[in-house]
Amino acid sequence: MSQMIGKQSISFTEPPYILASGSVVGKKEGEGPLGKCFDMVCDDDKFGSESWEDAESTLQKEAVALAMGKAGLKQEEIRYIFAGDLLGQTIATSFGIMNYKIPLFGVYGACSTAGESISLAAMSVAGGFADTVMAVTSSHFASAEKQFRFPLEYGNQRPASATWTVTGSGAFVIGTKKTHTKITGITTGKIVDYGIRDSMNMGAAMAPAACDLIAAHFEDFQTKPKDYDKIVTGDLGYVGKKILLDLLKEKGFDISEMHTDCGIEIFDKDSQGTDSGGSGCGCSAVTLSAHFLPHIEKGVLKRVLFVPTGALLSTVSFNEGQNVPGIAHGVVIEYEE
Amino acid sequence: MSQMIGKQSISFTEPPYILASGSVVGKKEGEGPLGKCFDMVCDDDKFGSESWEDAESTLQKEAVALAMGKAGLKQEEIRYIFAGDLLGQTIATSFGIMNYKIPLFGVYGACSTAGESISLAAMSVAGGFADTVMAVTSSHFASAEKQFRFPLEYGNQRPASATWTVTGSGAFVIGTKKTHTKITGITTGKIVDYGIRDSMNMGAAMAPAACDLIAAHFEDFQTKPKDYDKIVTGDLGYVGKKILLDLLKEKGFDISEMHTDCGIEIFDKDSQGTDSGGSGCGCSAVTLSAHFLPHIEKGVLKRVLFVPTGALLSTVSFNEGQNVPGIAHGVVIEYEE
Repeated sequence: MSQMIGKQSISFTEPPYILASGSVVGKKEGEGPLGKCFDMVCDDDKFGSESWEDAESTLQKEAVALAMGKAGLKQEEIRYIFAGDLLGQTIATSFGIMNYKIPLFGVYGACSTAGESISLAAMSVAGGFADTVMAVTSSHFASAEKQFRFPLEYGNQRPASATWTVTGSGAFVIGTKKTHTKITGITTGKIVDYGIRDSMNMGAAMAPAACDLIAAHFEDFQTKPKDYDKIVTGDLGYVGKKILLDLLKEKGFDISEMHTDCGIEIFDKDSQGTDSGGSGCGCSAVTLSAHFLPHIEKGVLKRVLFVPTGALLSTVSFNEGQNVPGIAHGVVIEYEE
Repeated sequence: MSQMIGKQSISFTEPPYILASGSVVGKKEGEGPLGKCFDMVCDDDKFGSESWEDAESTLQKEAVALAMGKAGLKQEEIRYIFAGDLLGQTIATSFGIMNYKIPLFGVYGACSTAGESISLAAMSVAGGFADTVMAVTSSHFASAEKQFRFPLEYGNQRPASATWTVTGSGAFVIGTKKTHTKITGITTGKIVDYGIRDSMNMGAAMAPAACDLIAAHFEDFQTKPKDYDKIVTGDLGYVGKKILLDLLKEKGFDISEMHTDCGIEIFDKDSQGTDSGGSGCGCSAVTLSAHFLPHIEKGVLKRVLFVPTGALLSTVSFNEGQNVPGIAHGVVIEYEE
């Protein structure tokens, strides 16, 4: 029986399971509404490292160690690791997971990377290419500001549409061993360009891609919004959420009841000064790991569509006057008794 | 029957086929020993674009169009595209393939990306997730120098160990439809760090990873060097080739007879001033497409182990004093009557 559904989706005939996950975050995330849910909160945002990049590598290293430990697995038992981050040449990943000696597929999907890596990890298990694999992604506020925006010391003003890059890494062990959380399908995103040119408004750049993905998902699986307990986007924030809901309404889908965004969940906008919300590869990964997965595991949520969203830009493309196109990747996670 | 072989390989029970491929290169590559083999040689290294990055995007766009055209396929018939390049946030890919509206898995494996993208593309077909997919990678001399080294105008001296980034893009259509070239197996690389810190000697940084990969491949498939007509590394160049042969001899494998390197094949060292040889994601991709695949297609080569090699660094990691670890990904391509 074919697992291909519609134009851009897969419905797994033998769904892979999420065996365990690990989340590591920085101080600010630890002070937010989900603070108590994370596996590890570090008061030192440098995580004992000499540079912000090295700190981000440490985040990945720790998240992988936590997830493996919870699954009771050794590194030799992990057949592949699918990993990525936001930095140029994904150096947080290279130096973060290097010492694990696990065959690596490096991925890049901007902030949608958690969705992309989990999709490929699930495919590798469902395709019979591995029994147990991992997916890991990270972001770090300071390494991202340095990479994409201004030096921290410059103390630039932030417009209300700006998001706050989450310092965090989430790692997922995915395999054939049964648990209460299974990945039943994926929808893979195309690049969508709405002509946005404001790098301080990533929510607006990514919302059209999220809309395209979610609409394609409904079409491919022949489902409706109410078939999902939650539809969770990655880091659209308050600004992007509004655009997404409006765009989907134009297509005849009202997801206002079950939609939420990891970037909105992770920070308290009013007390934490995070403007539109959290962002970064790490945002959706740690929120899935620490907040949504435990709810699915207990059956509180039965079916969740997880849609991390990414903005495809670099300082070079941006300074050369290119638009900021977006991409999104969807993963369906369901409760199994 | 399991397709997993040994610790890090897959032997496809139903091998996917390479339906067609396309190669586009710049002027210098067109003047090299393989000049007549490429599908398209452009005298203008800017390919009519306004920036080097945009030129690299155009390379990808053209390579994809060529490969699709040769396979007689439309973009709607391509289920996924696995694509990557060397630039920060892989912008050559984003802006190169954006307009094709094909679901995208962005990958990053430095110069090993051709091996990684073909591996994942083959897995997606062999796993039953797609009938036809594409893999594409690119590099551009000028965008890479700007990204990793010095402004071109600075006219820096090049040590003899330096490689010359290939301006080129290679695209591959992979699917279930039978042809004379099939992908029978893959071996996925781990990161290998030998403590190299010289960013002008990428061959030395990548050779240990190539050695590790090739030795693991022989172990997993229970094969010997003479079982392959060619073992083709990506861009080790003359310096890296010598190290690879020495390292493999220490492990008991002599591949000197059947080994060659795309970086050595693509340029004439003496007349073209390319020092150690060609490099970049595009180097292995265009050499496979234009030179080796036609030989496999005709049965001149019956079994080739293709091993693109990557150096995992960014200017940030390098300037922060990090080593330059390497990675390699192996793909077995065989002739079928």
